[in-house]
Amino acid sequence: MKRRLVSVIVAFPLLCQCVFAQTTDPVRVYRRANEHRILREFVELLSIPNVASDAEGIRRNAARLVEMLKARGLKPRLLEASTPNAPPAVYGEWTTPGATKTVVFYAHYDGQPTDARKWTGTRPWEPALRSAPFEKGGRLLPMPADGEAIDPEWRLYARSASDDKAGVISILTAFDALRAKQLSPTVNLKFFFEGEEEAGSPHLVEILSRHKELLSSDAWVICDGPVHQSGRKQVVFGVRGDTNVEVTVYGPKRPLHSGHYGNWAPNPAMLLARLLASMKDDRGRVIIKGWYDDAEPLGEAERRALSEAPAYDRELMKELGIKRPEGAGRPLLELINEPSLNVNGLASAETGALARNVIPTTAVAALDLRLVLGNDHRRQVARLVAHIRAQGFHVTEREPTDEERLTHPLVAKVIQEPGGYNAERTRMDLPVARAVVAAVQTTSAGPIVLMPTLGGSLPLSLIRETLGAPTLTVPVANYDNNQHAENENIRLQNLWDGIETYAALLTMKFQ
Amino acid sequence: MKRRLVSVIVAFPLLCQCVFAQTTDPVRVYRRANEHRILREFVELLSIPNVASDAEGIRRNAARLVEMLKARGLKPRLLEASTPNAPPAVYGEWTTPGATKTVVFYAHYDGQPTDARKWTGTRPWEPALRSAPFEKGGRLLPMPADGEAIDPEWRLYARSASDDKAGVISILTAFDALRAKQLSPTVNLKFFFEGEEEAGSPHLVEILSRHKELLSSDAWVICDGPVHQSGRKQVVFGVRGDTNVEVTVYGPKRPLHSGHYGNWAPNPAMLLARLLASMKDDRGRVIIKGWYDDAEPLGEAERRALSEAPAYDRELMKELGIKRPEGAGRPLLELINEPSLNVNGLASAETGALARNVIPTTAVAALDLRLVLGNDHRRQVARLVAHIRAQGFHVTEREPTDEERLTHPLVAKVIQEPGGYNAERTRMDLPVARAVVAAVQTTSAGPIVLMPTLGGSLPLSLIRETLGAPTLTVPVANYDNNQHAENENIRLQNLWDGIETYAALLTMKFQ
Repeated sequence: MKRRLVSVIVAFPLLCQCVFAQTTDPVRVYRRANEHRILREFVELLSIPNVASDAEGIRRNAARLVEMLKARGLKPRLLEASTPNAPPAVYGEWTTPGATKTVVFYAHYDGQPTDARKWTGTRPWEPALRSAPFEKGGRLLPMPADGEAIDPEWRLYARSASDDKAGVISILTAFDALRAKQLSPTVNLKFFFEGEEEAGSPHLVEILSRHKELLSSDAWVICDGPVHQSGRKQVVFGVRGDTNVEVTVYGPKRPLHSGHYGNWAPNPAMLLARLLASMKDDRGRVIIKGWYDDAEPLGEAERRALSEAPAYDRELMKELGIKRPEGAGRPLLELINEPSLNVNGLASAETGALARNVIPTTAVAALDLRLVLGNDHRRQVARLVAHIRAQGFHVTEREPTDEERLTHPLVAKVIQEPGGYNAERTRMDLPVARAVVAAVQTTSAGPIVLMPTLGGSLPLSLIRETLGAPTLTVPVANYDNNQHAENENIRLQNLWDGIETYAALLTMKFQ
Repeated sequence: MKRRLVSVIVAFPLLCQCVFAQTTDPVRVYRRANEHRILREFVELLSIPNVASDAEGIRRNAARLVEMLKARGLKPRLLEASTPNAPPAVYGEWTTPGATKTVVFYAHYDGQPTDARKWTGTRPWEPALRSAPFEKGGRLLPMPADGEAIDPEWRLYARSASDDKAGVISILTAFDALRAKQLSPTVNLKFFFEGEEEAGSPHLVEILSRHKELLSSDAWVICDGPVHQSGRKQVVFGVRGDTNVEVTVYGPKRPLHSGHYGNWAPNPAMLLARLLASMKDDRGRVIIKGWYDDAEPLGEAERRALSEAPAYDRELMKELGIKRPEGAGRPLLELINEPSLNVNGLASAETGALARNVIPTTAVAALDLRLVLGNDHRRQVARLVAHIRAQGFHVTEREPTDEERLTHPLVAKVIQEPGGYNAERTRMDLPVARAVVAAVQTTSAGPIVLMPTLGGSLPLSLIRETLGAPTLTVPVANYDNNQHAENENIRLQNLWDGIETYAALLTMKFQ
């Protein structure tokens, strides 16, 4: 009984400090006094459609960012690729008197494409607050008027609320807080907001190459991705590489009545099912020849970090309704250190109300291939193509001609989309790595998580290869943010925490 | 040389008679004098949206048909199901003095659902003429003014242009021609135009049962489906049964970032691919246990008819771009006498421009199961369900609960859609069968095709089971009509021929 009482006594002040108490932390004081303004600026930015292929929307976002940087005295400019209409990066800078090191702070302002009809009660570019996640009964709330309290458990729903305009707002508001409280950054600051990350960064290398001197630095800090599923902050030392491949298989040249021709005309949906099924075993292991051959094993520091990271698989399984994950019982954190093959989507003719009794003409699978250190994205795609050929398919990169159709029983069009890149990992013992870890740790009561790699991807290999700078990723979003899907959202407390994290990073001890 | 010359001489007048020559055939004379009016009435009917689930459109179609029957003195009435908003059948009748037999002429006025965006240059319910099929460069034409020539090779594009408003127009125009030329039918006529055939006729049995006496007859003649691929007219003695099944498999409860969770969260698109692949072998043979067990073998007459039917597989393969059909070399006509399992459509998350790097939450396959004599649609679906269970799936008919997801590694929702029915075949030696064959043969220079069964389906078993009447199917549409798909069309010569076919059937020698 006594011991229990003691622990309650100890825990209570800690809780108070986090949630209720008066604070003397200047960044927190600043944020509390400015929540309404921060939210307004965020909502305004989220209201501008930001799919990388929408040139007009992207330009409006970039123009808004330029205004935001200008208002802060950060000397903004657009960094353009040579291709007309390619999304520009938005650049800004701040010179710190006496600083010897320079750090680039990165976020991206574009978001994943989305079908507005799939959103529940809100729309992608009409930001809306809910009292909680809508799956948990969160109800829609009006935007709070000045003076009205803002509950940190509220969720803001919009495309890129988490991924990755939250990054832009966290970085810039951290800067605001320092300025307002007359605190100085410890390093020279550069800001790089990319406009096509979700499209695979097809022009990033060109933009970096064109501005090597402007972008020279000692390190990049990347604000993207979610914090750990346990809610703990994390520093991530690497990312998987990524490339997308679209596979189309062919049936008859025109859709056929499934009665008159069923049993005779080849059905592309079934051919695609058989092809996909040939790629993985029933535990989710990729059985394409050589798939895992190039992967570099984890080092000692990485294996230790993994073993120290909190295990969260059981909770995730419960929350996501998963009885048996892939991987034959190995933990998620281990599995994301391997290359993957994921089906992003399938389509053939129609299902549901528009379904008709037809033999479809084509069936399409959108695949993404995640890569780890040692993999090369072109080599991995070549393995996939070889596998498709080994299943008897004639592989082409264009719509098949009549002659191809009449020569080959099985025809597949396989397109590697532009913008693939390889994995990246920064050594945990670099001085900048230590400085980043120490800075983030100052903002957290418990130990932060050190993650050798994110399962997700960022074009970090392109940054190191082009500019020579190491990269460290410090995420801010809640893990259940529906990133990349409909109903993307951010939990406000994650944004508030993110501002503190980035204020600590702007003042990190890296000399 | 001589023999060749002779055959040219013989063939030429035959050709002239069909295409160019003056004719004394009163039905043809009538049609030639009335092509513009027939086309106008057809276009008007095709302009009314006619998907069975669109209650308002269906009512407008039914009202238009009632007007058309009334104008012809055919005493129309609507035959309703008890369910509100179920599509009514449109009934009409004509008593022939002295006739001892009664024949019901059937067509359906509803059409398959369709996505207007998939049509090429025209829209489903805005009928438009082309000079030829658009794949062969057919250009859009204005509707011909009175007096302008109408080329019989023109195509009329619209939903149901072939399937099956062409049936309604063929039957009613044949009746017009007889009346105009003071020719009398030989049998009492009843007309039954169904409004939900493409939805699987879920209320047909109820409507037939409610009006048994009104609908009493010696036989039904069904105008639906295409003529033989060779262009020859055909009489069809049976149809396959049909039932639709939708299979949904489940992944995580919310869409997940494919990087952060790929390799760990089960992917429903891959699970569905594996499930579908388990259903057929690489020759298209269904490997679900017992799939072919109930099928009655063909009789002697049917096998003879099949062997006499023109082989058209080579031409079809060339036209459709198919190098290797399913069925290990067996001909199409033989294969459609077996039960089938067809994937009508697949969907999981998105492909193409909307594709995102996600692990989808569900994957859906729309299946149709064609049935032959001996099969029962409920029994065949039970086999499918047993197979899905044997692959390790927990099978449910509702969205799975959280508990089901957390109890079973694999969950599939399997829904048999309403409206399935069994196959039907009429004996070739019945008097009415002989009369129908003889009547159709009088309208054709070459031998017509006798087809034991269509690959497609019509609810003919429901008619025989409910009313006891045998059914014979006499199609009119061109085989390349894109039935059930986008860009449905009819070749005008097929409509003209159909009118002559049905005039012969209204005057068949069946006493």
